[in-house]
Amino acid sequence: MKFDWKDSIYSDGSKHYVTNPTPELGEKVTIRLRILKNAPVEDVILRGKINGQAHFFAMTEEKKTEQFVYYKYQLEINQPLFHYHFIITTDDETYYYNQFEISNYPPVEDYDFRIVADYQPPEWVKSTVFYQIFPDRFYNANPDNDVQDNQYTFNGYSTIAKDWNEEPGEYEEAHCLDFFGGDLEGIKEKIPYLKELGVNALYLNPIFTAATHHKYDCLDYFAVDPHFGGDGALIDLNQELHSNNMKVMLDVSVNHTGIAHKWFNKEANFFAEDVGAYNNPEAKEREYYYFDEEGNYHGWEGVETLPTLNYESEALRDAIYRDDDSVLKYWLQDPFNIDAWRLDVADVMARMDDKQMHHQVWPEIRENIREENSEAYILGEHWRDDQEFLRGDEWDSSMNYFGFGRPVRQFVGEIDHMLERRLEQFDFSSQKRKASELAEQFKQKIARLPHQIAYVQFNLLDSHDISRLHNNPQVSWQDYRGAVIMMFTFPGTPNIYYGDEVEIEGHRESVEGCRYPMEWEQEEQNQDYYQLYKKLSHLKQEKESLQTGGFKILYDNDYVIAYARFTADEIYLTVVSQEKSRSQVAIPIGTLGVFEEAEVSEVFGQQPPLEIEAGIMNLELEAKDAFLFKIINKTKEVGG
Amino acid sequence: MKFDWKDSIYSDGSKHYVTNPTPELGEKVTIRLRILKNAPVEDVILRGKINGQAHFFAMTEEKKTEQFVYYKYQLEINQPLFHYHFIITTDDETYYYNQFEISNYPPVEDYDFRIVADYQPPEWVKSTVFYQIFPDRFYNANPDNDVQDNQYTFNGYSTIAKDWNEEPGEYEEAHCLDFFGGDLEGIKEKIPYLKELGVNALYLNPIFTAATHHKYDCLDYFAVDPHFGGDGALIDLNQELHSNNMKVMLDVSVNHTGIAHKWFNKEANFFAEDVGAYNNPEAKEREYYYFDEEGNYHGWEGVETLPTLNYESEALRDAIYRDDDSVLKYWLQDPFNIDAWRLDVADVMARMDDKQMHHQVWPEIRENIREENSEAYILGEHWRDDQEFLRGDEWDSSMNYFGFGRPVRQFVGEIDHMLERRLEQFDFSSQKRKASELAEQFKQKIARLPHQIAYVQFNLLDSHDISRLHNNPQVSWQDYRGAVIMMFTFPGTPNIYYGDEVEIEGHRESVEGCRYPMEWEQEEQNQDYYQLYKKLSHLKQEKESLQTGGFKILYDNDYVIAYARFTADEIYLTVVSQEKSRSQVAIPIGTLGVFEEAEVSEVFGQQPPLEIEAGIMNLELEAKDAFLFKIINKTKEVGG
Repeated sequence: MKFDWKDSIYSDGSKHYVTNPTPELGEKVTIRLRILKNAPVEDVILRGKINGQAHFFAMTEEKKTEQFVYYKYQLEINQPLFHYHFIITTDDETYYYNQFEISNYPPVEDYDFRIVADYQPPEWVKSTVFYQIFPDRFYNANPDNDVQDNQYTFNGYSTIAKDWNEEPGEYEEAHCLDFFGGDLEGIKEKIPYLKELGVNALYLNPIFTAATHHKYDCLDYFAVDPHFGGDGALIDLNQELHSNNMKVMLDVSVNHTGIAHKWFNKEANFFAEDVGAYNNPEAKEREYYYFDEEGNYHGWEGVETLPTLNYESEALRDAIYRDDDSVLKYWLQDPFNIDAWRLDVADVMARMDDKQMHHQVWPEIRENIREENSEAYILGEHWRDDQEFLRGDEWDSSMNYFGFGRPVRQFVGEIDHMLERRLEQFDFSSQKRKASELAEQFKQKIARLPHQIAYVQFNLLDSHDISRLHNNPQVSWQDYRGAVIMMFTFPGTPNIYYGDEVEIEGHRESVEGCRYPMEWEQEEQNQDYYQLYKKLSHLKQEKESLQTGGFKILYDNDYVIAYARFTADEIYLTVVSQEKSRSQVAIPIGTLGVFEEAEVSEVFGQQPPLEIEAGIMNLELEAKDAFLFKIINKTKEVGG
Repeated sequence: MKFDWKDSIYSDGSKHYVTNPTPELGEKVTIRLRILKNAPVEDVILRGKINGQAHFFAMTEEKKTEQFVYYKYQLEINQPLFHYHFIITTDDETYYYNQFEISNYPPVEDYDFRIVADYQPPEWVKSTVFYQIFPDRFYNANPDNDVQDNQYTFNGYSTIAKDWNEEPGEYEEAHCLDFFGGDLEGIKEKIPYLKELGVNALYLNPIFTAATHHKYDCLDYFAVDPHFGGDGALIDLNQELHSNNMKVMLDVSVNHTGIAHKWFNKEANFFAEDVGAYNNPEAKEREYYYFDEEGNYHGWEGVETLPTLNYESEALRDAIYRDDDSVLKYWLQDPFNIDAWRLDVADVMARMDDKQMHHQVWPEIRENIREENSEAYILGEHWRDDQEFLRGDEWDSSMNYFGFGRPVRQFVGEIDHMLERRLEQFDFSSQKRKASELAEQFKQKIARLPHQIAYVQFNLLDSHDISRLHNNPQVSWQDYRGAVIMMFTFPGTPNIYYGDEVEIEGHRESVEGCRYPMEWEQEEQNQDYYQLYKKLSHLKQEKESLQTGGFKILYDNDYVIAYARFTADEIYLTVVSQEKSRSQVAIPIGTLGVFEEAEVSEVFGQQPPLEIEAGIMNLELEAKDAFLFKIINKTKEVGG
């Protein structure tokens, strides 16, 4: 054995290592851990806390396979959160194993394994490939409902109708009033395209009536925009999606409305002048917003067209999520039956100076959504450290920029997005990120989450809010391939942002640069991109190892990262090099029980020079290589 | 410069780096950071979150000294918690600096600097040296109140009166009913001894009436045990302490009472048989406990003599901490005027399966204690990761076993106490801890706390619950010296457990081994120990650098750790070697601005070979050396 036996210690919160992995209070679970059979282990101990008191539970041998010993311990989950780590002893040292690392001193409990009683993840998400659509820019099936030039004026600007093949132009120029005519009928028409690609869930950017193309400035939470086809088009679309076993997620900002929203009604283009909180201090919606005594109101980030909602108002809470016909319940119900909510700027919602209400409001929102649909997926927008929302009682996931998109984009050659946004103000530079730094960022997020939540994280590289990775001239096709392979093999659900699968054009100067109309001309679609996405999408839907399988980073030296997803039967090994020249790596695949004999294939048919010897996979990489190996261990299980 | 300039980046939450370091909501603070003057820095940015939104504040140069540039930024604290880190740019990289480390990728926010609005630490603790007394074993000034042989029977055993010079024997033998006669008058008589030693606060183990010598099985929360002198003796003692500018902390378990407590009254030795919850299901105190329908009750850790209190009962909350004459308020009031509470088994309190009430109860307790005495120190017993209680709204400190006592005892050669307790069950071994591991453990605790809390942590090596470190034959005087120097120089307040200062005898077989009667025979007192404690106690009381000064680990290679406490004027440098032979270390003292010229002395008059050159202190250490250097930099401040 040429590697450290301790790296074979493994457990996680999946059904493979916790029977009954999402227990209700009072139910029993059996927790498992495995270690290589020839490891010099004496005691294996489950160290958990019950009512604050630490307990050392002696684990017993459950079974032996050719390579592993499995240890187990059964206990009852009697409290809302049971967190634990493992203690493994040898004749001369005591080791502690948690979700972050193996140490030889007592670790902090932040990285303990966590079982949250009564938390039910939306199981379907684990085998889902999302496809994100910015509706105005996807497909125009019904030109009759298109916005016309100068049809509306808003905020001092007028609408512009653009041709599908035109470029969107700068955000500053168009002021989000340029329309390309995409609609929900268009999405419905393209379902066969999406199915062939391998997508089984849609994430639609906002579709409720609003002045702008992005519609985050909603003016009516209860009406699909007529230019997208109105409510009827959504009902049709969702029926068609569901009959194709596809899910649908809508996007809404309940942090703020538009000023034209009927509750606020500052620009009275759409509603009578005497209704709404702005014009009528007596309106019942007045308390939904932050008005001061002079009638000034608070706008999100100081933007006066986006008045902030005030969650001190019980009536607002009723209207947004408590009432049977509240915003967040209404669309979950028949005939719409949406499957998920993506909540815009969720990180800042219900927070105002001395009133930090977010950890009251989010659990209430969760409870109310789940009453309506116990499998609904709750996704909050967050770009930064989002762990405080991911404990089981608030969101199921954030937009995983922090734990996936930002670090991976940096790894393949970008400056961090959060710095890039500030380049006018500060002179930021960034050296190339090392694999060990990427691994650290992966682990720092995932190791603080309950496993059941970690495995439904929404992983993305691109979105409507960030320039498309492939539009960066610093990022080559090879760089990009590696990033995409990681997105599909990382724990969680991948999100394809429309057009990425065909190398859609765009620019990096403003947010409009990532909102180009979809490229439907086949000769303009990049087939390398398409085949990459298609292969990975179908694989993700099919392979249990990529859904609930274990996750282990095996190698992170210099600029090469390798990690595995695995079940007892198969291993998918992702290897991504960001080296500028040829390199030789030694991946300790023996920690997963593979010593000599194994059936190794590469998902894309590549055949790099490799050999497996004494548990080490020696692999020769060309610059920027990216592989996805499938490995079937040829040793049969014995004992049990 | 032979070291990394980045290690000179420094800020903390003390008054030296945050003007108005304990602000109320709405107050302004100026946050400072310093970096060596010749560092290749471009921008220095304060990255903080306001209402969940990240802000990048450009810091400006405040002043330059001969060595440092100080940067500053002023803002208003508008929310209960303001957390932040710093971003420092150079021409080719962007660095992030938080309380834990410097990284070149965006860090998790767990280690952000934290300003908690409206949190007021008990300022006096920062210059305090505690002395812990187990009252029955300290000094017997009044033999008239001694417990007599067979005076009481309890739990099937009878009291034993022992001679002062007898050994306590095994716990199992004496069953905590062996008494040596120590009393509060005895403590009062020894105040001159304590003052000379350099102590300015006492921590008294429980003194309320109880059957046992340890009195954690209280039978009346409102009466000092008559064998300790009763309430009058406490009033006298506290007056004398206060007139000597000394503080006093009492210890109480409000997690459980004794079965003989008047509220419970199972063993009716002391109270009428018809009162109390056990004999009388109609008693108002019945709801204070966990009785089931058959009349069975819950005992802490299953111990039937210690019935657990049930904080679901509002009436219990009133009696313990809400009423004006509640337990926790009563003793803070005149004529007792205690200054602090140590709360026993606080980590498990108010937690019962599905009812995890601890994070409701503790903030209420804090609020009620602080109403009575805004400077009261709130110390909770906790042996493990205690961070969840140390956010500003619950405790001021835990018994800092986790972040100080346990790692330091391991560093000087012990197996971890939590493992040792389980040696009958498991075969634990432990290799010697490295300095880097000790540093990691120090930082993992401290870096997750608001600075103002980190600096009032209660640091201890020994207590009434753990065998005395010097009674371990594996631990030499030199080993011990290093540990004690660390206790007095680490951020927080040191606690001398009575008798440690004279190398009191004891054994390691049971908890009785650390409760020997105090050694008052001068010829039996170890003068090396005494002088060590005396020197350090006085130093701690006198030196601002050891109270509110910065804290920086400068060196942690192999088995040598070095850290500094510092103000702008002086540096105290602790160097502790656990090497088994001579070693040479190079401490980057230049990160604190000391390059060549400095006045260096050693607190204990030792003169090891050393030289400072280009910011490196080269030092030759003999095996197990331990030094405390005082360093005055000879460069004058310029500019400003």
